[in-house]
Amino acid sequence: MAVYTDVADEELAAFVARYDIGKLLSFKGIAEGVENSNFLVHTEAGYFILTLYEKRVDPKDLPFFLELMRHLAGKGITCPTPLVANDGEMLGTLAGRPAAMVTFLDGMWIRRPRTVHCAALGEALARFHLAGADFTMVRRNALSVTGWRPLLEGSLARADEVAPGLGAELSEELAYLEAAWPGNLPTGVIHADLFPDNVFFLGEDLSGLIDFYFACTDFLAYDVAICLNAWCFEADLSFNVTKARALLNGYRSVRDFTDAEFATLPILARGAALRFLLTRLHDWLNVPEGALVTPKDPKEYLKKLRFHRDAQSVSAYGLDG
Amino acid sequence: MAVYTDVADEELAAFVARYDIGKLLSFKGIAEGVENSNFLVHTEAGYFILTLYEKRVDPKDLPFFLELMRHLAGKGITCPTPLVANDGEMLGTLAGRPAAMVTFLDGMWIRRPRTVHCAALGEALARFHLAGADFTMVRRNALSVTGWRPLLEGSLARADEVAPGLGAELSEELAYLEAAWPGNLPTGVIHADLFPDNVFFLGEDLSGLIDFYFACTDFLAYDVAICLNAWCFEADLSFNVTKARALLNGYRSVRDFTDAEFATLPILARGAALRFLLTRLHDWLNVPEGALVTPKDPKEYLKKLRFHRDAQSVSAYGLDG
Repeated sequence: MAVYTDVADEELAAFVARYDIGKLLSFKGIAEGVENSNFLVHTEAGYFILTLYEKRVDPKDLPFFLELMRHLAGKGITCPTPLVANDGEMLGTLAGRPAAMVTFLDGMWIRRPRTVHCAALGEALARFHLAGADFTMVRRNALSVTGWRPLLEGSLARADEVAPGLGAELSEELAYLEAAWPGNLPTGVIHADLFPDNVFFLGEDLSGLIDFYFACTDFLAYDVAICLNAWCFEADLSFNVTKARALLNGYRSVRDFTDAEFATLPILARGAALRFLLTRLHDWLNVPEGALVTPKDPKEYLKKLRFHRDAQSVSAYGLDG
Repeated sequence: MAVYTDVADEELAAFVARYDIGKLLSFKGIAEGVENSNFLVHTEAGYFILTLYEKRVDPKDLPFFLELMRHLAGKGITCPTPLVANDGEMLGTLAGRPAAMVTFLDGMWIRRPRTVHCAALGEALARFHLAGADFTMVRRNALSVTGWRPLLEGSLARADEVAPGLGAELSEELAYLEAAWPGNLPTGVIHADLFPDNVFFLGEDLSGLIDFYFACTDFLAYDVAICLNAWCFEADLSFNVTKARALLNGYRSVRDFTDAEFATLPILARGAALRFLLTRLHDWLNVPEGALVTPKDPKEYLKKLRFHRDAQSVSAYGLDG
């Protein structure tokens, strides 16, 4: 939960006046999101989300994120849509930070996704990939295979504080993945962080995708691998193959996998597990003084990584290999 | 800012179903309030605020607070109104805590109140006092004069850590106030915490009062004294007599002071300053491990207390004594 920056009422009123959304009626900080400050804004035209981009987001990346959301919304993907101010800009400045206003999206994230939610997520992810096919901007994925070694090196000396032997295990894993990582798979814009808290549902119907601030250009199937990790393990970290099958078949009902994607899915899933393991390990070992957010336990992703390491083919995920 | 308790989507849906407000469409934690967890809830019937009462609120007091809000709303005071569930109750249980749903109020709190806001606040406070005149429930003010000695005793040993000589100064002040505190002034339900963040405005128009969780039965003029402290000092802690005059004359335009209230206002203002000084001192000396909220500096109220100690009569507050 987070509101890092307080916004004065007068300053906000001036910011809101840049848009054609009527007078400001209410605003409240939202206790969600760990990277940015978010506010619910009510004006005469309705409800909106105001985001102030804090220091973990590179301002140079903001046009990519905002243009992507507009592009997707234009293609019928339900996602927050940035408002264009009267000066033609989507990005403004508020309380000394880059800031944007997006449409408010109904729906709730599901704390305990069921198979039906995984199927809907798979379909929505494939639709998102298809909608992004003609999005022309490119953003390199700094958290894909070439980014993992510097991350590991920053944590290696203290990795065994988290689990005995962790440093050696991760070094070996990374060496394997660097060698085995596929060089060429269907590529496009991916969400790269489609965890349950970024997917809204109304009952069993998926009502929207949010939080595109890790979106980048990478293998489409890597996005699927991230979702397998994020949606298909139970609370006890056992893998639910029924949910995985539903997710993958949901995806395939909209966009089928190529043979190469199919064959490399276990490696992509290992890589996705390592990616979240490495960032959580970094955050775990570097909790800032006075942090408002408890870091997530990196060992969760160690267990997931080990599961995928044992997977020989997509049959481990419930599909016919 | 605070959301202390996470609420699962399914559990919330069941809670919402107890009210006649249609299906749940969205809910978001609000980063406001330091005592309770608050959520903005959107249903087919509109927007509402869900409050989960955390441990600093005594569940025995909740009927007083909720009945008061309903009473005031019935008298035309704009304030959050608790919804009555289908079982006839305003209070329910969610995530193991007492919980209530209230109407959503438009408006924003003013970070830097101007004279016009102080005048409106004075009027609204007097209207609130008149509307409460026939409210029959009683709640003793645990933070009035009889409650200050135990508070001071808990902090006395370490008071001088905050400012040299503070312990002696507060002991002397308390002895004076215990002796000089008026025994009989017009009494009724008071808000007791009407700081700027509990008063909503739309432009210069006061649009509502919120947060009745310190409301209690005490001298009406003590509520005015609390507001003088909370609204009429500038950021540099100089007293703005123009704002005080506006606040008091706003109040008098709706409900005039008795002679006794008029004469004792400086003492009530000293008491109000001491009350917030003592609770802030306690919080400052007892920051819990892992606290999400930075305690407020008690020295702010020491300076305010000293101002009121020098006030000989209401002429210090801009009125003709």
